[in-house]
Amino acid sequence: MTDENVVFVGKKGTMAYVLAVVTQINQGADNVQIKARGRAISRAVDVAEIVRNKFVIGSKIDKIDIKTEEIKTEEGNPLKVSAIEITLVK
Amino acid sequence: MTDENVVFVGKKGTMAYVLAVVTQINQGADNVQIKARGRAISRAVDVAEIVRNKFVIGSKIDKIDIKTEEIKTEEGNPLKVSAIEITLVK
Repeated sequence: MTDENVVFVGKKGTMAYVLAVVTQINQGADNVQIKARGRAISRAVDVAEIVRNKFVIGSKIDKIDIKTEEIKTEEGNPLKVSAIEITLVK
Repeated sequence: MTDENVVFVGKKGTMAYVLAVVTQINQGADNVQIKARGRAISRAVDVAEIVRNKFVIGSKIDKIDIKTEEIKTEEGNPLKVSAIEITLVK
């Protein structure tokens, strides 16, 4: 799996990420990893569900991993945040 | 698995749900289902990670399911929301 198959979900609207996932699948990817951290985790789940139910019928969730990542705040302090990786297969 | 093993994560602070999960395990549950919908999904992931990393060392994520549920708004209209179920085993 190359980095090209990753969609990192952040603060944009949900449909921006849905479009990114659908585009990757339409360009031939047979799986896409949807990643998010912190509050964007809910949006990542929305993205996976919308792609699966409305845009790429027959695609399914292959794997979901959650973990804790340590990031640095703007002040340089370490901060632990939860993260999710949802692997969607065509 | 009975309903007693379910913790439904909502709008309270994260630690309230962490305590609920830890309490169930301390009372003898060998697995707990952590459920949430919509924006609370991120919090459910935080709860699972905090329990696993800080309170019940050795517990692990057995399964994570995501799905779409239809709820009714206060006005009685149907609304689709994403949901997550995280099964934590001791």
